[in-house]
Amino acid sequence: MNTPMNIEPDVIKRAQKVKVILMDVDGVMTHGMIVYDSNGLEIKHFNAHDGLGIKLALLAGLKTGIISARESGTIRTRANELKMDYLYLGRDKKVDAFRELQKDLNLEPEDFCFIGDDLPDIPVLKQVGFAVAVKNASAMTREVAHYVTEKDGGEGAVREVVEIILRAQEKLDRAIDKLWQ
Amino acid sequence: MNTPMNIEPDVIKRAQKVKVILMDVDGVMTHGMIVYDSNGLEIKHFNAHDGLGIKLALLAGLKTGIISARESGTIRTRANELKMDYLYLGRDKKVDAFRELQKDLNLEPEDFCFIGDDLPDIPVLKQVGFAVAVKNASAMTREVAHYVTEKDGGEGAVREVVEIILRAQEKLDRAIDKLWQ
Amino acid sequence: MNTPMNIEPDVIKRAQKVKVILMDVDGVMTHGMIVYDSNGLEIKHFNAHDGLGIKLALLAGLKTGIISARESGTIRTRANELKMDYLYLGRDKKVDAFRELQKDLNLEPEDFCFIGDDLPDIPVLKQVGFAVAVKNASAMTREVAHYVTEKDGGEGAVREVVEIILRAQEKLDRAIDKLWQ
Amino acid sequence: MNTPMNIEPDVIKRAQKVKVILMDVDGVMTHGMIVYDSNGLEIKHFNAHDGLGIKLALLAGLKTGIISARESGTIRTRANELKMDYLYLGRDKKVDAFRELQKDLNLEPEDFCFIGDDLPDIPVLKQVGFAVAVKNASAMTREVAHYVTEKDGGEGAVREVVEIILRAQEKLDRAIDKLWQ
Repeated sequence: MNTPMNIEPDVIKRAQKVKVILMDVDGVMTHGMIVYDSNGLEIKHFNAHDGLGIKLALLAGLKTGIISARESGTIRTRANELKMDYLYLGRDKKVDAFRELQKDLNLEPEDFCFIGDDLPDIPVLKQVGFAVAVKNASAMTREVAHYVTEKDGGEGAVREVVEIILRAQEKLDRAIDKLWQ
Repeated sequence: MNTPMNIEPDVIKRAQKVKVILMDVDGVMTHGMIVYDSNGLEIKHFNAHDGLGIKLALLAGLKTGIISARESGTIRTRANELKMDYLYLGRDKKVDAFRELQKDLNLEPEDFCFIGDDLPDIPVLKQVGFAVAVKNASAMTREVAHYVTEKDGGEGAVREVVEIILRAQEKLDRAIDKLWQ
Repeated sequence: MNTPMNIEPDVIKRAQKVKVILMDVDGVMTHGMIVYDSNGLEIKHFNAHDGLGIKLALLAGLKTGIISARESGTIRTRANELKMDYLYLGRDKKVDAFRELQKDLNLEPEDFCFIGDDLPDIPVLKQVGFAVAVKNASAMTREVAHYVTEKDGGEGAVREVVEIILRAQEKLDRAIDKLWQ
Repeated sequence: MNTPMNIEPDVIKRAQKVKVILMDVDGVMTHGMIVYDSNGLEIKHFNAHDGLGIKLALLAGLKTGIISARESGTIRTRANELKMDYLYLGRDKKVDAFRELQKDLNLEPEDFCFIGDDLPDIPVLKQVGFAVAVKNASAMTREVAHYVTEKDGGEGAVREVVEIILRAQEKLDRAIDKLWQ
């Protein structure tokens, strides 16, 4: 649960520009388990350290959001609890959702970070200024990313990315102070 | 979540012929946990990367199916979601289910891949052209397999097998393109 | 999921005499997670390989049973599914349950194997002819055991013990044949 | 599940004074997974070895308690089952809850141990005589701790701390004897 020390200058430069952190759910906010109960209803395993990361991003004035191909009540519960700003569920073509959001917000590609783990995330990763793959992402996904996390999805990868961004923007200490006030 | 690089020529040859990918559930599509809630109803943990693998197989024109000794609503939910073609549940003698399917489809043994992890899978593994054991399979099961995955069951083993087959058949890139269209 | 190769002669001798395999649940048949849903009802994670191990013990004519300090519907579900013979739940003093069973069956200490993982199991482990601690057992528990498994509880430790016993009794191959018939 | 052998003298001195063991839940008593079912209700994964640790603390005459930012029925279930003494849930400012308790009990800072894993725990860790971070705690949390556990949260970290305290106070053997009586 450390911010990795030796971040490349190009990654820091990209992280400095980020205003909106977007992410996939399965494999990124979770370890990638799709869990069903006997009624076919979904159970999801999120990560407490990631949750605090999203809270820190919020306290630092950044926006956060989810783009997922799945539609799931558990995702809505978690996104609401964490007060995330944008929620695109059941979107097979994630890049379309991204373009909608970019247009709505009237922002540039470099204003966005996207964290993904598999093939459907690649078209979005190719659009954003700061493209992140989690450690346990598929090989092709890792290849298109500007940064690959040291943590697996669901094990703190989102927290790691938030800390890199807030540190690059020199906003981390102040966000932590706000957390304690 | 890489396709392993050094696949033996015999494995590639077997993978090239596969038309139908069959698999066990517990220990193959899951890590082997049998989870009950307090009412004795089952909860199952599948893998998102495996799910995308089965989708890629479908996009490449291959058929997929499940042969399990257990009867479980959660398996039906997952199989339906992934649009799998064949579903044999509650079959203590898996090899009988396999023979029924082979007869119905009028296919040769080399047209089939089976992915298993334990003793009840061995009679089927001995029948098919491409017999796969997951990394965490029992020793006897690994011994009768043509290929042992680098991933554990429930951790991406199915995805690994699908990628080997599609790569051997030179269908992977096109399936990924279809996924993105 | 291998039977370890280099079992000490003393362990084999003890394994040869076993007629009844008893075990704790939490930490032995599971990894030791106590899982509650929001209604305070328990969810338990068993292991498919262990389940097949208990089936092999049954096919080989051995008896199996559970002694647990907890009372849980999920344990009953699993024990029934696996057709286990003896079920002692909600027993704070496990050794009392063991003595009752020993008396009922009119068997000697060396007829019993017990698999445990923590302090409450130690009084039983000191009574039986073949005392087993799982790899992730507490240090004191491992110290009183004749054998410590190579697998963690919930990861195949029970299967490992059953295979050692059936191999020592030269009953494993025949049990597997029965499984396939 | 060993008490680590080489505990520093300063840690032992701090452990000797502890009368009340307080802890965070997510990431400490659990591995940090926030699990929701499809109705947005929480499921929690506790650890059996930790549970026995809390029981040993009770048998040794120590008090135990929870301070968590979350409000959850599953925590209440677990705390009741383990007969824990103090339960502060839904407390964003954990240090306020700690100060209330300290005042109510009329105890000194050195009478308390607190086990935490992330930023919201740091203000409490700075107050107590024996500040513990679990192995998988965030870097800043580990830095303010007097002791970092060898076990991850949810994998026996609480048990480890209890054994260190009871051993330092020479109360462990007697507590185990009571457990077996």
